[in-house]
Amino acid sequence: MALSSRTALALLVLAAVAAVACASDADPLVDFVLSGANGAPVTGANFAFRGLNNVNVTSGQGSAAKSANAATFPALTSQGISYTFVNYAPCGQNPIHTHPRATEILYVIEGQLYVGFVDTNNTLFSTTLNVGDAFVFPRGLIHFQQNTNSNSGARALAALNSQNPGTQRIGSAIFLPSGIPTSISQVAFNAQASAIEAIKQNFPASGNAVGTANTGCGPSVTYPYGRKML
Amino acid sequence: MALSSRTALALLVLAAVAAVACASDADPLVDFVLSGANGAPVTGANFAFRGLNNVNVTSGQGSAAKSANAATFPALTSQGISYTFVNYAPCGQNPIHTHPRATEILYVIEGQLYVGFVDTNNTLFSTTLNVGDAFVFPRGLIHFQQNTNSNSGARALAALNSQNPGTQRIGSAIFLPSGIPTSISQVAFNAQASAIEAIKQNFPASGNAVGTANTGCGPSVTYPYGRKML
Amino acid sequence: MALSSRTALALLVLAAVAAVACASDADPLVDFVLSGANGAPVTGANFAFRGLNNVNVTSGQGSAAKSANAATFPALTSQGISYTFVNYAPCGQNPIHTHPRATEILYVIEGQLYVGFVDTNNTLFSTTLNVGDAFVFPRGLIHFQQNTNSNSGARALAALNSQNPGTQRIGSAIFLPSGIPTSISQVAFNAQASAIEAIKQNFPASGNAVGTANTGCGPSVTYPYGRKML
Amino acid sequence: MALSSRTALALLVLAAVAAVACASDADPLVDFVLSGANGAPVTGANFAFRGLNNVNVTSGQGSAAKSANAATFPALTSQGISYTFVNYAPCGQNPIHTHPRATEILYVIEGQLYVGFVDTNNTLFSTTLNVGDAFVFPRGLIHFQQNTNSNSGARALAALNSQNPGTQRIGSAIFLPSGIPTSISQVAFNAQASAIEAIKQNFPASGNAVGTANTGCGPSVTYPYGRKML
Amino acid sequence: MALSSRTALALLVLAAVAAVACASDADPLVDFVLSGANGAPVTGANFAFRGLNNVNVTSGQGSAAKSANAATFPALTSQGISYTFVNYAPCGQNPIHTHPRATEILYVIEGQLYVGFVDTNNTLFSTTLNVGDAFVFPRGLIHFQQNTNSNSGARALAALNSQNPGTQRIGSAIFLPSGIPTSISQVAFNAQASAIEAIKQNFPASGNAVGTANTGCGPSVTYPYGRKML
Amino acid sequence: MALSSRTALALLVLAAVAAVACASDADPLVDFVLSGANGAPVTGANFAFRGLNNVNVTSGQGSAAKSANAATFPALTSQGISYTFVNYAPCGQNPIHTHPRATEILYVIEGQLYVGFVDTNNTLFSTTLNVGDAFVFPRGLIHFQQNTNSNSGARALAALNSQNPGTQRIGSAIFLPSGIPTSISQVAFNAQASAIEAIKQNFPASGNAVGTANTGCGPSVTYPYGRKML
Repeated sequence: MALSSRTALALLVLAAVAAVACASDADPLVDFVLSGANGAPVTGANFAFRGLNNVNVTSGQGSAAKSANAATFPALTSQGISYTFVNYAPCGQNPIHTHPRATEILYVIEGQLYVGFVDTNNTLFSTTLNVGDAFVFPRGLIHFQQNTNSNSGARALAALNSQNPGTQRIGSAIFLPSGIPTSISQVAFNAQASAIEAIKQNFPASGNAVGTANTGCGPSVTYPYGRKML
Repeated sequence: MALSSRTALALLVLAAVAAVACASDADPLVDFVLSGANGAPVTGANFAFRGLNNVNVTSGQGSAAKSANAATFPALTSQGISYTFVNYAPCGQNPIHTHPRATEILYVIEGQLYVGFVDTNNTLFSTTLNVGDAFVFPRGLIHFQQNTNSNSGARALAALNSQNPGTQRIGSAIFLPSGIPTSISQVAFNAQASAIEAIKQNFPASGNAVGTANTGCGPSVTYPYGRKML
Repeated sequence: MALSSRTALALLVLAAVAAVACASDADPLVDFVLSGANGAPVTGANFAFRGLNNVNVTSGQGSAAKSANAATFPALTSQGISYTFVNYAPCGQNPIHTHPRATEILYVIEGQLYVGFVDTNNTLFSTTLNVGDAFVFPRGLIHFQQNTNSNSGARALAALNSQNPGTQRIGSAIFLPSGIPTSISQVAFNAQASAIEAIKQNFPASGNAVGTANTGCGPSVTYPYGRKML
Repeated sequence: MALSSRTALALLVLAAVAAVACASDADPLVDFVLSGANGAPVTGANFAFRGLNNVNVTSGQGSAAKSANAATFPALTSQGISYTFVNYAPCGQNPIHTHPRATEILYVIEGQLYVGFVDTNNTLFSTTLNVGDAFVFPRGLIHFQQNTNSNSGARALAALNSQNPGTQRIGSAIFLPSGIPTSISQVAFNAQASAIEAIKQNFPASGNAVGTANTGCGPSVTYPYGRKML
Repeated sequence: MALSSRTALALLVLAAVAAVACASDADPLVDFVLSGANGAPVTGANFAFRGLNNVNVTSGQGSAAKSANAATFPALTSQGISYTFVNYAPCGQNPIHTHPRATEILYVIEGQLYVGFVDTNNTLFSTTLNVGDAFVFPRGLIHFQQNTNSNSGARALAALNSQNPGTQRIGSAIFLPSGIPTSISQVAFNAQASAIEAIKQNFPASGNAVGTANTGCGPSVTYPYGRKML
Repeated sequence: MALSSRTALALLVLAAVAAVACASDADPLVDFVLSGANGAPVTGANFAFRGLNNVNVTSGQGSAAKSANAATFPALTSQGISYTFVNYAPCGQNPIHTHPRATEILYVIEGQLYVGFVDTNNTLFSTTLNVGDAFVFPRGLIHFQQNTNSNSGARALAALNSQNPGTQRIGSAIFLPSGIPTSISQVAFNAQASAIEAIKQNFPASGNAVGTANTGCGPSVTYPYGRKML
């Protein structure tokens, strides 16, 4: 007798969910977890992720990211590490965010970045990075990278110690309609609901907003550490 | 010969720093880590934290917390767990925050709370809790608790799976002078610098601000799930 | 061709077992692991466990527990924490037990409890807790909570740093027919087999045994720290 | 100026406590942690523990153990594993106990042992082991080993996955004067205080008690699985 | 309608792979993970691995190993520990290898072994072990055991703190045709390709090679610590 | 009274050893572990490592590495991640090695590399990487990177998920005088002692050996995947 498809599917979904559920960044238990596509044998090529040096910037904040993690690069499954490449337009920012499950080290490949994080005592730790410099963003803390150059782009590579570190953008969580209700934000920030709503209406930035007066990249902006935008 | 104080201090600082550095929420290696005050023997009383049910609310958001963690309650050292008691004034909020190093379960002891978190897809998961209800805030994600009752307080107990989970309040990190620069926030939120500065000027709320129009607790506010403030 | 049900079931069971097997209280790898019932979307309500403040006491030791863990509250899967609510009848005890996979913090919501654990040097660490007090039971060590009041009940909330800490009651493991053989216990305890068997015959206590002379809650009992039962 | 000895000692104790506190069976961070005695260089001999095959049996239960763990064998520090050698007299038992921080595998070097553990559902899993057989005792669960041969001894080697697994003997925790109060045990076991006290008076066994009628090793005892003592 | 076998199999394989993938040596989440064969209940026998004291030596290096790990002994699943028994012929060696996922403690049951590991500073730590001696090989480091006696065998038991520690033999990885290309080895070792190829041609040793001049076990060999082969 | 320097030093060494001992790549317990030099406050600059893009190649294998790990970059303490920059001369190799405590992802910044690892089944997984490609080397497994271009250099950045992953070069461990004795290697590799000694005499390569016939980089060498050196 054939297995009821309803039952089989329920069990399969259960098994798949459970399997995903237990994934964790503990020590690996096997050399690697991979199988070739369509039953083909695993080869060296399965352990390579190609093209982690190019991604188009379309967001209004002026940056874009491409990640090699367990979802996009199965060879990382159970290996406890991942990479994200970030491309910054002139004046572009990788907007304020956290990684709930990882510490990050960012490495500048090209350009110059003003970077920082805020610790749990609400103190900013920031500096300016040049090519070949690396910076640590401790696990779970709010941080950002800002290309302060209005004429040229920048590129960076971020390593994170989880196969799926997750990214939570503060702006998106607070100002998108699907996120925190205004009635909650106004209490948290001691602000008028109208002030919150005003930001929400312009969020997220449209694709061509970078470099406008809105985004803060222009001659009048003074960054910490005495740097001026030109 | 007496040890050079300079050398001794250097070594002591090194040892202390290293000791703190390696603290981690892995499995404990000993039954417990404690020593009695002034050389007195350890007793059962050393494993008790008293009075985790009372703390005065003085912040403008209308809540206050008292934590039993490794710093305030040394018996928790190397045990991988801690407790925080939260007291909510009428209309009070435990303002939007994350715990960078722990998952939290909140338990309502008294009153009614509207609670929620936002996942990394920017989706809010929220509900209303009554006495005896518990709610999970997954590790590192933005969350809040709001007392929606304008007449009575609320009390809750939160357990977190780290001896020092840390708390990062979004409002404080973004709107305190010591936190994220306005020049960064305006890009991240696609907002005018003046809009950010306006919020900063009123942040944090003064102690008596709870329940005013500003804080959103009043008859005109509609919360998700159809609840109205009275 | 339809898949052989026998083969499918074998594979499904294998997958399910393997999935459960690898569950571990390491760092989570995803925001959460949940799916709505019957394909319904996950909502905030899925992260709430209701009614963790009421459970009937029926056991002879005079306590009952209700747990929110990964089995009863799937939102805790991969989150590394759980809650147990305990209700104590007058003179009731949460009988001597261990949690093989977690440290516990107990918080007194109502009443007064005499609590303690024994470390691996066979030393008792005990004290009396009042409302709002918390106590640490280090991982894996033998412990108990005793309501010393013969007139009123008590209630407590225990947080444990595992999604499935497990509970092993010493009395049940030693004195139930399914547990340790008498031939083993008599050597371990250097006792006559008849002495072990005598205890086994009355174990577990029937539902109405609390408060009888047997259970030790009465005027003649002096507890450590000078407290007398009334 | 010489450092105040009071200050120095306080800092040293703090550092030592903190250092011990953070010890944990996580991944090692260095090849090894060792220094030669009196400043001598570390050699291969520092990684050897000698004589883990001989220990005199003196306890009344008829067994004795010698452990190579982080305390007795510093080369194991941060390595997450340890060994215990057990010597069993004829009819001797390694009395009922738990390891709060480790899973154990026991390997029989000589003789024959009846071994078992009780899971959290109060079910006994037991069998008889011969030379070359190994048995798993899952983390934290109550277990024992019994030499069922009244004429010859046995020897076993136990590996545990912690540098300091800890051992909690149930008999010692319950029946030694320093352990659980009788007023608690009588409730937990639903027994008369006099029954508990009777066992306490004969506990622990004196050194020559093994093999008497008391210890259960004789012709009249039938062990599970149909084995009879001769 | 019966579920498509192709779809079902694909999902099953996915689930199985995912389940294996997440296996990790973190804390267990359940007492144990086992199911009886053909639906039979789990019994104590399922926790025993028999015959870990005998394995025929057939390799040219003169040793053979039998492992009780999660693959050969399912009761170890999620328990974070495993055992390997090693049998050494006269002059036999457990050839130079690493365990990528575990620290090892080796215990000598019979005979005498010269053992050692090389740390990341390229320093050898070695010594000679006799019956009842144990030695630590820290995680991931290159090590070996050599029976230096040309007349008698030896036996040892190794415990490793992973359910699947893995073994990587240096000789096999470098000199088997499936391993490192000669073009790579000649650069790494600064050797002529012909020198590498010469070793490859004789590798692995044939079954009867032990004790010949090739294998180094003879009167002319002086081992460190002044021991001579006879 | 001044503290005895002998006692103080003993305690300090103990504390320092213990502190180092417990360091582990588990979850961090604090935001970060740092103190400014000479008591100066910690600033953003303390979280930056400068110049991770330049290191002179002097070794005979034709590569050089610069690492940002807990030792060279204290901000990484307790953060569980590190970076290594590698510079490859024409024909240069990062010689065959393992990292005993970490998985690695290598990212090519400039040039082209032939890379590979051998799993515990002695199978090579290798491929050729171009700029922007990343490759995974699972924890503890033998691997290498080879610049196959005899005219131009290459540069890569490696992220490893440990604050101190360690590096064990196979050539150095086997062929340096301080490493594995020849009497052991000849058994392991089934080789004549003279063959091992011949390699030892030329090891390590002198600084100017790269590109010579010895190192394998020339027109006659065919790499796997059909690539020829020019």
